[in-house]
Amino acid sequence: MTTKTIDVCLSPDLMHLYQVQDRTVVVVDILRATSCMTTAFAHGINSIMPFAKLEDCLAKKTEGYYTAGERDGKKVEGCDLGNSPFEYMNPELKGKKIAFTTTNGTQAIAKSEGAQEIVIGSFLNLSTVANYLRQGTNNVLVVCAGWKGKVNLEDTLFAGALVELLKDNIEPDCDAPLMAQHLYNQGKKDLVGFLQNSSHVKRLARLNIHKDIEFCLTPDQYTVLPVLKNKTLSL
Amino acid sequence: MTTKTIDVCLSPDLMHLYQVQDRTVVVVDILRATSCMTTAFAHGINSIMPFAKLEDCLAKKTEGYYTAGERDGKKVEGCDLGNSPFEYMNPELKGKKIAFTTTNGTQAIAKSEGAQEIVIGSFLNLSTVANYLRQGTNNVLVVCAGWKGKVNLEDTLFAGALVELLKDNIEPDCDAPLMAQHLYNQGKKDLVGFLQNSSHVKRLARLNIHKDIEFCLTPDQYTVLPVLKNKTLSL
Repeated sequence: MTTKTIDVCLSPDLMHLYQVQDRTVVVVDILRATSCMTTAFAHGINSIMPFAKLEDCLAKKTEGYYTAGERDGKKVEGCDLGNSPFEYMNPELKGKKIAFTTTNGTQAIAKSEGAQEIVIGSFLNLSTVANYLRQGTNNVLVVCAGWKGKVNLEDTLFAGALVELLKDNIEPDCDAPLMAQHLYNQGKKDLVGFLQNSSHVKRLARLNIHKDIEFCLTPDQYTVLPVLKNKTLSL
Repeated sequence: MTTKTIDVCLSPDLMHLYQVQDRTVVVVDILRATSCMTTAFAHGINSIMPFAKLEDCLAKKTEGYYTAGERDGKKVEGCDLGNSPFEYMNPELKGKKIAFTTTNGTQAIAKSEGAQEIVIGSFLNLSTVANYLRQGTNNVLVVCAGWKGKVNLEDTLFAGALVELLKDNIEPDCDAPLMAQHLYNQGKKDLVGFLQNSSHVKRLARLNIHKDIEFCLTPDQYTVLPVLKNKTLSL
């Protein structure tokens, strides 16, 4: 049996270096797009359609979608929802469809197009994602959403958590997964503390959303696995 | 006084994200281009002209240059020199000019063009580079050569060493320098051991050059600071 491999793309701007057509891609944007998506599905949303462009997202309003939009950490005016996971616990959203656009997360999904399969990862569904990858036959690529092309610590830590959890089954391919694993092992005892100097946490702290940050860094709150099919995320 | 900042570009393929015209750029390719360059200057070479393209490098042979070429870790046929630092200790090279091309390092230099100043960094001249940056007034960008666009551990560790050495004087800008610093602090007691699973060390180990790896990871063997001026490196 050939060993499966796991690689990590630390920024969407490095996607041209990776072949994805035979891989399962895990898209991650811990603060906060993929954490919101995980939360939404755990609370009974029907589906999420991710958009890279704001105008495409807003256009879905006329088709009965709730719209969710974030740019630069803030909710976009005119959207029904922003980018805090707590908004997605609202029972009113049960069974509904959401059109979703964010600064980084939905861009990373768009750049992963062409992958054999695309799933959504966050600390909130960490073990569920890891179990799914362990059972699958595909090689894995974790795509970190980063911040406007730059790498970020929180997405890298999540990638490292997957590499660590899968180390007996899936082999790291190249240095990025090793770097992520080292960082995760250094920070795992106190992820919030480890991240406190990171740029995005500082950015979000200015927006006064400590509660969001703590929640998004809490592993295994949910067991849902959002999967992209026909440009739509569902369970 | 405004605090100076240090950022780290983990791959030349991310250079479009960084403004360089007002920065001092430190180009690093630990295994082995910038380690060779540092060694060459410490042993009395006159100048090094870096080339991204092999044919441009070879063309300098007729102008009295020694040619140094590496592709995929191996010396290029027809070149006078390869990419082992020990070759550059040869007393015959004293006072001579070298035209130099490598898989990653000289590409990273080419992509740094337009910077206010470009210097060459390696563990071999680590403290000299750090002192120079500390005394200067420019913000700093460390450009890691990586491996064909992908990030690598050894260049990231060097970037982290600079961030750590300069932490009282120059502030990390964004998450990449923090990540590099964390990794360096984790690995600094035994850099060779920390790197033993990395992809480039495995690649080089197959070429049987352990001695090169150990030497390139040894801090502060030299006090030279190669600087790029008019497309040529000199002291």
